Amino acid sequence: MSSIQAVDLAHVGRLINHGPTVLVSSAHGARRNLMAAAWSMPVEFTPPRVAVVIDKSTYTRELVLASGAFALNLPCRAVVDLAYTVGSETGKPAHEGDSDKFSRHGLVPLRGPALGLPLVPGCVAWMECRLIEEPHAQQAYDTFFGEVVSAQADERVFVRGRWSFRDDNAEWHTLHHLGGGLFALPSRTVQAERLKPVRT
Amino acid sequence: MSSIQAVDLAHVGRLINHGPTVLVSSAHGARRNLMAAAWSMPVEFTPPRVAVVIDKSTYTRELVLASGAFALNLPCRAVVDLAYTVGSETGKPAHEGDSDKFSRHGLVPLRGPALGLPLVPGCVAWMECRLIEEPHAQQAYDTFFGEVVSAQADERVFVRGRWSFRDDNAEWHTLHHLGGGLFALPSRTVQAERLKPVRT
Repeated sequence: MSSIQAVDLAHVGRLINHGPTVLVSSAHGARRNLMAAAWSMPVEFTPPRVAVVIDKSTYTRELVLASGAFALNLPCRAVVDLAYTVGSETGKPAHEGDSDKFSRHGLVPLRGPALGLPLVPGCVAWMECRLIEEPHAQQAYDTFFGEVVSAQADERVFVRGRWSFRDDNAEWHTLHHLGGGLFALPSRTVQAERLKPVRT
Repeated sequence: MSSIQAVDLAHVGRLINHGPTVLVSSAHGARRNLMAAAWSMPVEFTPPRVAVVIDKSTYTRELVLASGAFALNLPCRAVVDLAYTVGSETGKPAHEGDSDKFSRHGLVPLRGPALGLPLVPGCVAWMECRLIEEPHAQQAYDTFFGEVVSAQADERVFVRGRWSFRDDNAEWHTLHHLGGGLFALPSRTVQAERLKPVRT
């Protein structure tokens, strides 16, 4: 039985609220690609919207602009080598018929339920996004806004709308890139308490 | 001797690359405020630019628009209660002469070296940003772009342009908000290896 469950769109902000590295996947016709992006954030809860930085030099940018859509995939500890590797190679085929990043790494994509986008297997959460056309933000800041139209997560680590990072599910903890292939894991947690104002 | 050191502006992207919660501080004339924001990201390395989401309902937004500047402060485990508390209360004085969030919590701000912005003591990194006026992105996505003009970090945890999260400096690890005051800490790390393509 699959542990992948649909996530209520009202909870989408929580998926990337804690700042994980994401893989951006995209497709146009028979062409498809994925790239790593450390730079993404939610911008609105309702409707659920996100922003992600996609550099001008990338093949992903070409596919996103052509198709008007992209997916965010959240890699986890179990696929840390994959996340790092697809972040350090180009997906643009040098010759017609060259393998793309999916086949190069033996990945059979899952199919996004809303837009049919290729989703990366082995990840712990997935969002399909419709591109919101903002040519100025794209040009000036490489910033792409999208509306999330489907969201799924692995219920072994995302439970009732919240991340649950524990010792017994460490393989599925999200990745937070520190540079040079070193990733932090959100494995320890701390519960904050409200402070009372000091008397002044 | 202070452990606060200037950070080369070329390394600014690394400060928030891993997705920490930030406190946004701002000032205009005698008014000042701070708020918690989980939603921020770098958008460019050179010049160093960032984006941060500042909701229309906030007092911070009023001060940022009036002054054309904001600072990002990175709270750490040692000040987790403060980070949570300033994220759940308004800074707008109800009456003239009411205390602001700094004095309410006994905080004597540090002075930003470039713009004189009030910086939050007890944090582990600080950036002063000049607002880049983008009225459409501000209105449509609550997204504020800024150029980083000064950056500082605590060298006990940010060493030669990189975060160094270790057991012996756990009090200064950054915070990654999971919701409801529960924060993940980037205390464990994993080093990725490059994968070789599979034969297809």
